[in-house]
Amino acid sequence: MSEQSTPQGVDIAGRTIAVLGGTGDQGRGLARRFALAGMTVIIGSRSADRAASVAKELADAEDASVDVRGLDNAAAAAEGDIVIVAVPWEGHRDLLAGLADELADKIVVDCVNPLGFDKRGPFALDVPEGSAAEQAAEVLPRSRVTAAFHHVSAVVLLDPEVTEVELDVLVLGEDRAATDVVRALADLIPGVRGVFGGRLRNAHQVEALTANLIAVNRRYKTHAGIRITGL
Amino acid sequence: MSEQSTPQGVDIAGRTIAVLGGTGDQGRGLARRFALAGMTVIIGSRSADRAASVAKELADAEDASVDVRGLDNAAAAAEGDIVIVAVPWEGHRDLLAGLADELADKIVVDCVNPLGFDKRGPFALDVPEGSAAEQAAEVLPRSRVTAAFHHVSAVVLLDPEVTEVELDVLVLGEDRAATDVVRALADLIPGVRGVFGGRLRNAHQVEALTANLIAVNRRYKTHAGIRITGL
Repeated sequence: MSEQSTPQGVDIAGRTIAVLGGTGDQGRGLARRFALAGMTVIIGSRSADRAASVAKELADAEDASVDVRGLDNAAAAAEGDIVIVAVPWEGHRDLLAGLADELADKIVVDCVNPLGFDKRGPFALDVPEGSAAEQAAEVLPRSRVTAAFHHVSAVVLLDPEVTEVELDVLVLGEDRAATDVVRALADLIPGVRGVFGGRLRNAHQVEALTANLIAVNRRYKTHAGIRITGL
Repeated sequence: MSEQSTPQGVDIAGRTIAVLGGTGDQGRGLARRFALAGMTVIIGSRSADRAASVAKELADAEDASVDVRGLDNAAAAAEGDIVIVAVPWEGHRDLLAGLADELADKIVVDCVNPLGFDKRGPFALDVPEGSAAEQAAEVLPRSRVTAAFHHVSAVVLLDPEVTEVELDVLVLGEDRAATDVVRALADLIPGVRGVFGGRLRNAHQVEALTANLIAVNRRYKTHAGIRITGL
C-alpha cells in the first residue's frame, strides 16, 4: 500500500467544528462524537435557542466535560473552521446559498443523502446538480466542498453503549488537502476510518447507497455500514 | 439479527451456471470461482470457438478437475439455469433483448457496471432505464432479473494465490427467492457473503459505486471491495 489509511501530517487539533442542522439525529450524533474526541463543536440550527438546548442536552448526557455550544446556522457557519452540512435535503440548496460568505475559504463537509420513501421503501432522488455535494459546490464556489459521513447511523453515533463505530467513511472531493483533513476528522471517531473515495462527480452513488443500507437494515434488523476491504 | 446472512434452505447444487460475456476478465473470474466450487459452468461468448478456448484455458490452469465448457452466448443462455450477464455495457441491451426467449423463467444476474473513463478517472454513465439491471429487467420481462457481483475484482477472482475473497456481494432484485439463490451463489466463493441489498430501482448506485472503488484502487494501490458491517 503506497499510502497510510490515516492521513499523515494532518493536525486538526484546535479547529472548531460546526454542524449545520446539528439538532437533527445525524447532526447530533456527529456533534457528540467530535465533542467526545475533544474538539470544540458548535451546533447550528434555524433557531439559536433550539441549538443551545440540544447542545446542553448533549453535554449533560456525558460524564466527560465536552465543549459544545449552540448558535443559529449563520453564526455557526461563521464560527466553524470545518463546517458539516447535516440539514434536511429539502432546503439544502437555499440554506447553503445564503451562507456563501460565511463559508468562504472553509472546508465544508456535505453529508446529506437526497432520498425519498414510498411504500416500497427508500430510493434515491434525482438531483439536478448530480448530488447534494455537487449542489453544495455549485452554490459555494469559494468553499472547499467535500462529501463524507453519508452512511453513519445516527442511532449508533448517539448510543452510549457503542464505543467503537464499525465502518469506514468515504471522503470525496476535488481538493486533496481538504479530503485529508476530513479523513482525519473521521478518524477521530473510534473504529472509523476515513478513506478517500473519489471526486465529487462520483458523490451521487455514495449518497444514494444509503437507500441500500436502509434496505439492509430492514431485512436484517441492523444498523448497517460499510467497510472498504483491501486497505 | 432476524435472518441468517446465508440464506437457509437454498440448494443450488446441480444447477448450471452460464456466464454471458464469460471471456472477459470479470466473466472469467466468476466462471473460475464457481467451477472451483464444483458447479457446472458454461462460458458464453459471441464466438463459440473463443468461449471453448477460454474454458479450456481455465480448466487447464487448475489442479482440480473443473466442469467448464464454452458455447456461443445464445447456446450458453439456453443451457444455463442461472445466467450471469458479464458483457460490456456497450451492446448490453441488444444482446439481452435478443436472448429473451432463451432467458425466459430463468434467474438472470446482471453484474454490468456502466462506467465511463476520462482523464479525471472513472465516472458513472447515465442509463435511460436507471441502471444496467433495470435495463435487463425491461428487455427480459419473463426472466427473474437480479443484480450482483458488481464490486468483485477480476484480478482477485483470477489470482490463484487468493483463496479467500474479502468482500460482500450486494444482491438486488424484486423476487425474494431469486435473490436468495444468488446470495447462495455468492456464498460459494470462499470469503464472500451474499447480502440482500434492495430493489432493482436502487441498483444504479451499486453499479456506480464501482467508480469510487476504482478511485480507491488508484489512490491506495489496492483491489478494494466492500463489506457490510452490522451483520
